[in-house]
Amino acid sequence: MSDDNSHAVRRSQFFLPTTKETPSDAQIASHRLMLRAGMVRQSSAGIYSWLPLGFRVLRKIEKIVREEQNLAGAQELLMPTIQSADLWRASGRYEDYGKEMLRISDRHDREMLYGPTNEELITEIFAGTLRSYRDVPKTLYHIQWKFRDEVRPRFGVMRGREFYMKDAYSFDLTSELGRVSYNKMFIAYLRTFARMGINAIPMRADTGPIGGELSHEFIILADTGESEIFCDQDLIDMDVMASEVDYAVDLQPIVDKWTGLYAATDEMHDEKKFEANVPEGKRVCARGIEVGHIFFFGTKYSEKLGAKVNLQNGDERAVQMGSYGIGVSRLVGGIIEASHDEEGIIWPESVAPFRVGIINLRQGDNACDQSCNDLFIKLAEQGVEVIYDDRSERAGGKFADMELTGIPYQVIIGPKGVEKGVLEFKNRKTGEREEFSSDALFSRLGIN
Amino acid sequence: MSDDNSHAVRRSQFFLPTTKETPSDAQIASHRLMLRAGMVRQSSAGIYSWLPLGFRVLRKIEKIVREEQNLAGAQELLMPTIQSADLWRASGRYEDYGKEMLRISDRHDREMLYGPTNEELITEIFAGTLRSYRDVPKTLYHIQWKFRDEVRPRFGVMRGREFYMKDAYSFDLTSELGRVSYNKMFIAYLRTFARMGINAIPMRADTGPIGGELSHEFIILADTGESEIFCDQDLIDMDVMASEVDYAVDLQPIVDKWTGLYAATDEMHDEKKFEANVPEGKRVCARGIEVGHIFFFGTKYSEKLGAKVNLQNGDERAVQMGSYGIGVSRLVGGIIEASHDEEGIIWPESVAPFRVGIINLRQGDNACDQSCNDLFIKLAEQGVEVIYDDRSERAGGKFADMELTGIPYQVIIGPKGVEKGVLEFKNRKTGEREEFSSDALFSRLGIN
Repeated sequence: MSDDNSHAVRRSQFFLPTTKETPSDAQIASHRLMLRAGMVRQSSAGIYSWLPLGFRVLRKIEKIVREEQNLAGAQELLMPTIQSADLWRASGRYEDYGKEMLRISDRHDREMLYGPTNEELITEIFAGTLRSYRDVPKTLYHIQWKFRDEVRPRFGVMRGREFYMKDAYSFDLTSELGRVSYNKMFIAYLRTFARMGINAIPMRADTGPIGGELSHEFIILADTGESEIFCDQDLIDMDVMASEVDYAVDLQPIVDKWTGLYAATDEMHDEKKFEANVPEGKRVCARGIEVGHIFFFGTKYSEKLGAKVNLQNGDERAVQMGSYGIGVSRLVGGIIEASHDEEGIIWPESVAPFRVGIINLRQGDNACDQSCNDLFIKLAEQGVEVIYDDRSERAGGKFADMELTGIPYQVIIGPKGVEKGVLEFKNRKTGEREEFSSDALFSRLGIN
Repeated sequence: MSDDNSHAVRRSQFFLPTTKETPSDAQIASHRLMLRAGMVRQSSAGIYSWLPLGFRVLRKIEKIVREEQNLAGAQELLMPTIQSADLWRASGRYEDYGKEMLRISDRHDREMLYGPTNEELITEIFAGTLRSYRDVPKTLYHIQWKFRDEVRPRFGVMRGREFYMKDAYSFDLTSELGRVSYNKMFIAYLRTFARMGINAIPMRADTGPIGGELSHEFIILADTGESEIFCDQDLIDMDVMASEVDYAVDLQPIVDKWTGLYAATDEMHDEKKFEANVPEGKRVCARGIEVGHIFFFGTKYSEKLGAKVNLQNGDERAVQMGSYGIGVSRLVGGIIEASHDEEGIIWPESVAPFRVGIINLRQGDNACDQSCNDLFIKLAEQGVEVIYDDRSERAGGKFADMELTGIPYQVIIGPKGVEKGVLEFKNRKTGEREEFSSDALFSRLGIN
């Protein structure tokens, strides 16, 4: 993001319409905070525009998701949003999906729909292009807008109608090999969420309308979560990033480690098993938000849509499939639910829209302006994502906005500090304040 | 793209379904070549899935567009694909748009539509969030899927129904300042297309359904172009990248230089003026493809949708607006139309899906495999985008595929070369072949 200076912005020019008013229709913290922080704006029920601040966070989350998918060997493509109804009739899901599917007729009265997910289309692509046992394994993914016509859209981007999702699909020759692909995604998901600074716990899940036998949800802990969850404290303390992952080796032992401890959502919870398997001091009962869901469903779609490969002996076999979803736009809300306080959002550094915010306490004072400007330019040149609040506002308003928008590090510059040759540095998360010379500040930020 | 190794792929594992057959329904070169090169696959009439190779090109074009928009001071946000019909009723365009607009009813029978463009929605966002003269100038843009329900979709991604477009919108206090914003986009467009290795010529254009008085189309030359164009050869020879641009200074002189020479599409052509103004030897009559279109339309939308700002004296004034579109998905086809031969696509380096292709002439031969593998790993480590054709195919098929997919540089490795310690290096565009040691190859590619 550093090629074109869009990583360094002056607040006076940046489109960031924050507001003090608490929107009356927003019931949960992330929805309220995203509206107040000028991240999104509702355009219709459950449909949002992402304003520059929100867009930056969305892109950061997307980038982490993409990098971890690529690292796990998945290949990116892009399927369209509008699909043909016939394809969904072939799988038998056209009627099943009910009113959540946004159905459309085009000018020639052909029946179309806005894709809520892509099992059918990706299977059709496989069936139309690949046919040899040598063409598998393959895991293909895309990150694309989806639509589910929720009857009562609410909770902002957490349950929007138009939402941004990463969905991957694996194709394998046997169910054993399919399990290998499943395990790769399992680990990729743990890594993905860990990199975003959130604790996501895998839980055995129902397969629902996708079908199949094997499925896990990834749930982050947040007091405002939609569902109750039960798990072993040890799971929360495990860190997938503690060791490097090698996707070429058997991942089953690592997956077993993560699935061996008790973890269940409300629906799957078994109190007796919980008490038998988890020592009393480690029994966690909390609320959570689903941010990812993975499925292995074998030949359910490949049989119906003809995704088959020729074997070496001339036989033909339907491929074994899985599908793997991450709610990219939902995660923006989910991370806020898990990380905020009374004053506003507390962004984990990896997904923060900017890393550093500069507050000029006395805009118009030559020395302050100069000091702020020098720092801003130096940070910009070093590629640091920085927002400089250079508006002619009262200091109180600037503080409040910086807290609200959750920038991890604030540098506060006023006449007294300038005189003393120090900058005040505040950590948004801990609230800790320190005074630094500008050289010490750069070294604190890891800049030469 | 180098963080996760997705920039370096082995053909045996990469999802790249090329085909020798010429698709019968593809009438133009880019459509035929994109299907044959496994870049896209049609999912419904005028709706395509972008397979990994095509997706990479789409992303590269998008990245150049984004960087130049940011450089010109435009700020990125993201509006949704589904919009409310009421918004379009407010501007008066709901009925005007006719059958090209994909109209949708949701489960509550609310009238919605799949956005064909975003003047209404961005104006509503401005009106709902900004209100002071200090909030302008602003140029906001997004890159998002659009839908136009063409009666007869054809020419592949050149005239698809679901298409990817960058659209920017400028907001200014006066029409003079609006012209300043318009000029910035004018120059940004010239730079954008130049960076893609194509010659795009600005031409005075009709404003059509967008409205307004001032408008330019940007047209690239291609024999298969949809429209006839007339211009001065000097325009084709001008190079916007010859000097750095400073968006802070008055750009009118540069714009005047580009608009001072004769250039017109069929509809706007004036033969008498052409002959009077252009010396005979410089009269170019060619075919072209529109890839960008910019408009300045004043208060047409801001009046109707209430996008007004308060002036210092307390008065209120509707903002002056312009809109600026680039067909991102269309450009993929447009660049191919402008740059291909009998054998396939010839990618300009800046938008090529990979920069280097390695052809192993004798897969399975230890020395060849070793040599190819070493080179592949070295290039991958250096961040070079590389595709290694490691399939057990005949050399002829590998050559044909490499030509078809248009990789700028081929490195051909066979038993004879390995014995001599040289690599054969082929330039896709010029056809030139050279022999290099591996060190000389790296220096040829600008790698240490």
